[in-house]
Amino acid sequence: MPLQITRAPLASGCVETWTLNDPASRNALSEAMVDSLLAACERAAADADLRGVVLRGAGGHFCAGGSLGGFAKTIGQPLAAGEADPLVPLNRRFGTLLQALCALPQWLVVAVEGAAMGGGFGLVCCADQVLAHTSAQFATPEVTLGIVPAQIAPFVVRRLGPSAARRCLLTGERWDAAAAQRLGLVDDVVEGDMDAAVRAAIARHAAAAPHAVAATKRLLLAQPETPLPALLDEAAIAFSQALRGPEAPQGLAAFAARKAPPWSANS
Amino acid sequence: MPLQITRAPLASGCVETWTLNDPASRNALSEAMVDSLLAACERAAADADLRGVVLRGAGGHFCAGGSLGGFAKTIGQPLAAGEADPLVPLNRRFGTLLQALCALPQWLVVAVEGAAMGGGFGLVCCADQVLAHTSAQFATPEVTLGIVPAQIAPFVVRRLGPSAARRCLLTGERWDAAAAQRLGLVDDVVEGDMDAAVRAAIARHAAAAPHAVAATKRLLLAQPETPLPALLDEAAIAFSQALRGPEAPQGLAAFAARKAPPWSANS
Amino acid sequence: MPLQITRAPLASGCVETWTLNDPASRNALSEAMVDSLLAACERAAADADLRGVVLRGAGGHFCAGGSLGGFAKTIGQPLAAGEADPLVPLNRRFGTLLQALCALPQWLVVAVEGAAMGGGFGLVCCADQVLAHTSAQFATPEVTLGIVPAQIAPFVVRRLGPSAARRCLLTGERWDAAAAQRLGLVDDVVEGDMDAAVRAAIARHAAAAPHAVAATKRLLLAQPETPLPALLDEAAIAFSQALRGPEAPQGLAAFAARKAPPWSANS
Repeated sequence: MPLQITRAPLASGCVETWTLNDPASRNALSEAMVDSLLAACERAAADADLRGVVLRGAGGHFCAGGSLGGFAKTIGQPLAAGEADPLVPLNRRFGTLLQALCALPQWLVVAVEGAAMGGGFGLVCCADQVLAHTSAQFATPEVTLGIVPAQIAPFVVRRLGPSAARRCLLTGERWDAAAAQRLGLVDDVVEGDMDAAVRAAIARHAAAAPHAVAATKRLLLAQPETPLPALLDEAAIAFSQALRGPEAPQGLAAFAARKAPPWSANS
Repeated sequence: MPLQITRAPLASGCVETWTLNDPASRNALSEAMVDSLLAACERAAADADLRGVVLRGAGGHFCAGGSLGGFAKTIGQPLAAGEADPLVPLNRRFGTLLQALCALPQWLVVAVEGAAMGGGFGLVCCADQVLAHTSAQFATPEVTLGIVPAQIAPFVVRRLGPSAARRCLLTGERWDAAAAQRLGLVDDVVEGDMDAAVRAAIARHAAAAPHAVAATKRLLLAQPETPLPALLDEAAIAFSQALRGPEAPQGLAAFAARKAPPWSANS
Repeated sequence: MPLQITRAPLASGCVETWTLNDPASRNALSEAMVDSLLAACERAAADADLRGVVLRGAGGHFCAGGSLGGFAKTIGQPLAAGEADPLVPLNRRFGTLLQALCALPQWLVVAVEGAAMGGGFGLVCCADQVLAHTSAQFATPEVTLGIVPAQIAPFVVRRLGPSAARRCLLTGERWDAAAAQRLGLVDDVVEGDMDAAVRAAIARHAAAAPHAVAATKRLLLAQPETPLPALLDEAAIAFSQALRGPEAPQGLAAFAARKAPPWSANS
């Protein structure tokens, strides 16, 4: 199983941990791994009980990047005239995965130990919160190998802004956890126990109401492609739906009573 | 008066201080407060003597966020079939205020003491310069209450970039002034006297020529919605108008004479 | 010669140093200087041997900004009715230069000593990597002179993000190298020998394959104006072309053999 999925209950609903699980390759992104992640995203998008996802790697590394195994025969081989290029949809499919991760209605925490390279760096850029162990190493070395950080580039720019993105994408330089935090890739550096840090991140996110999170993430996803007035119109509808929905009375009553809301880890 | 407006002269023109003034609610954004702010923006946009605005809160807090008082009867109440939703234009109107603040032709300094929550956090994101007292606390706790940080989300993203925006909007975590500076919300942390810090900010902004500031702000406002070549065409016209206008000869002559220009606080 | 160009070999191909060369004016951007830079960009874009460009200033300063000499007669002079404004295309031409610098298929390192003001600050914003000596001083003082930072504004926003851009463009405040690094303008602060720092930057960039760099820069350039799905489609084609091209087999073979690739400075 290239992707191991475990499910744990929260005060209401549950959280899943998705573990990239091919330690021999440092969890390289094989076709099977990409397919499994895409299937998990599609299932999650329709799972009303699921409140959040933690993405990790097995065996002390997050992800060594794209596996070029499936491409071996085409490396350096020009396309024959008139031939449809099977590499194009294969590569594009990884972008579809990154789009699906960004579009998850649940929060996505990525916890990085060891290597997060190339495509693995791209996965990190889709997170709502990034935890990096002091063992973490980040790089996009594609250009040093003669290849292009193609599908990940737009997501790296969205996460880091154009300057820091340019820096890593064009030189392949390696960042440790502290450098990655300074450059905007990592939210929190974890010195000791990653499991404890993940539990704390889950508890923090669990304080947020599930439908409100999904509605907020939809607005964030729409922003780059929507003119501001239309985005604000959409936001007003989302606001009204939330206020008229089942979560607002519970959340506002809990707040007034100085209690935790029912969806919180501390309720 | 939910909004108190005072006016003080500069070397040329004047500056206004707009004080959110409902200390009992920590200056919560009631309908009356939003209306007063919108009216102030409209008046300012047409006020040729006004060179800048300082936005503050009375009573040791900036703004505790949206007041849900006007919404009380609709909380948790689904919309009847075919009914037009009065919440939608009410919420959208706050976005119109945020747009108007961003579109002010004058510089806007926001000075935060105490709480800047929810909608108050949104107001902060419209500033040209943000001063935060060490007493400041920033958060967007909407999702923890089961509601959506709807109108503010696009402005938070524009101010903080998508990563830091995601972090505050999806968890409601609280930032002190130092954290808010590190994450890009705050320009300057003020340890002692906020009035002195505001005076220094006014003096710094007063060095800039009023028409030049208005033209520059127009270009910044247009950028997200304008393709680069068209933006540069517009910029070339703005450049020529400024050079041919009354400010450039005064500014360039003062510079050549190593004097302060006539619009400066030190002239 | 307002622009001095020197060429040095790399392991494969070569690197050029473009030196702004009018020390008497602190390398102000005269019309001749802008023309020379534009011509150099056009030549570089068609130069298959050229792998990178280092942009510097002669005489201890980078660039004092736009030279207003050519504009002297129009300062404060309103345009006659019906007259075509020669200032507009003159100013717009500087934006064309900034666009051309951003569109270079080679990496662009900018090394700043002394002043980088106004238009010079704009040149810095087009770099892939910015080195700043501790002697560097950055500012966009246009608004304090009664003029508008017109052509540079969009590039400053792209480099710094809207908040830090607003700060420098609207007040003209001066940043030293450390402040410029904190605010996202500078990648590396250089305390001692700038020549050594430039050599190190060249060596780092030389590890990247030339066609892969050009393809990656094309994607980065297209991003602000291209919807995400179309950008990912384009990226998939760029990926396939790189993998089928001559660089990938060399790069991947070198990686497998734990050697430096042939284009690297250490090969």
